[in-house]
Amino acid sequence: MKVMVIGASGTIGRGIVDNLQRDHDVIRVGKTQGDFQVDLTDESSVSALFASTGKVDGIIAATGGVHFGPLAEMSSEQFVSGLQDKLMGQVRLVLIGKDYLNPGGSFTLTTGILTQHPIRTGVNATTVNAALEGFVMAAANELSGQRINAVSPTVLTEALDKYGAFFPGFESAAASRVALAYRRSLEGIETGKVYRVW
Amino acid sequence: MKVMVIGASGTIGRGIVDNLQRDHDVIRVGKTQGDFQVDLTDESSVSALFASTGKVDGIIAATGGVHFGPLAEMSSEQFVSGLQDKLMGQVRLVLIGKDYLNPGGSFTLTTGILTQHPIRTGVNATTVNAALEGFVMAAANELSGQRINAVSPTVLTEALDKYGAFFPGFESAAASRVALAYRRSLEGIETGKVYRVW
Repeated sequence: MKVMVIGASGTIGRGIVDNLQRDHDVIRVGKTQGDFQVDLTDESSVSALFASTGKVDGIIAATGGVHFGPLAEMSSEQFVSGLQDKLMGQVRLVLIGKDYLNPGGSFTLTTGILTQHPIRTGVNATTVNAALEGFVMAAANELSGQRINAVSPTVLTEALDKYGAFFPGFESAAASRVALAYRRSLEGIETGKVYRVW
Repeated sequence: MKVMVIGASGTIGRGIVDNLQRDHDVIRVGKTQGDFQVDLTDESSVSALFASTGKVDGIIAATGGVHFGPLAEMSSEQFVSGLQDKLMGQVRLVLIGKDYLNPGGSFTLTTGILTQHPIRTGVNATTVNAALEGFVMAAANELSGQRINAVSPTVLTEALDKYGAFFPGFESAAASRVALAYRRSLEGIETGKVYRVW
């Protein structure tokens, strides 16, 4: 299959590419690296990406930033930044990408364990992830002949040095293990599901 | 208790006001009607509202629009409109209102049955409602000495003439019954909960 991986140079993205490139034609996409570049917050950038790649059989997004900070000090602008980036970035990818996804093809988006298990300073992350899980569940009913799922990873083992303190007592998962869930979504038959790797 | 009800002239809002004004001091707020007016999408309008009302013991939001339409034809701009209105309107109310909510006070936001049960043309609604339920669950952990819950109503009996066709086979609930859940949130002890009226 011809599979587009957005966020291909990130920790999860590299795990996905390592796994899928064994037997798929992987198109690596990043903000500044990869075979193609895209800014998911920019409508014309996303359109330009698909105009360049042509039709694909799988579209995987492993990207998106949110705002971390105490609720007591959070501004509406900070809150909106996470909506614009991780939420609308992935939603925009679906709204535009569905016209470039071959019949039988699939979207796989990325949420995270914070959807169900909030951490300190993570209100924006939980909100954005919950929105994405709702989007996937609802969009699955309207995508005719295409599938859409999400992967919800716990904190990555590779990121424990940097983020471990924010996830006290959380079990981590290696990117190679998280990558399995993306393959499961890509090659499986289900739609509207969230594959939790935790 | 001094309780602010935003969206007081709507179908749910009227049910809430009817219920609460028996034994609470209710401040009715609307876009164009009520004791005070507010535009929840406007930061300065929300600040001005609280500057006018002073501190309160309960803040209830029963308001917020989303975009209904087929996913196949949905634009990013249409999708964002629901985020700006129903999602960010209620989030903004909390971010600003927490400084005007007395100790022991509560927020009660409004989501809806579409969070868990999508309908045709309702992808934006499901996404927005899911985001709000995530927000409530996460924010509850960071609101010190204040509570936050949401009420998730099914389609209102009073709205069946207008919206019934979008909810085939869904049981409706009268606004007077939905109003009970807001009182439960206001006077109860729980936080981070979603009271489903369906």
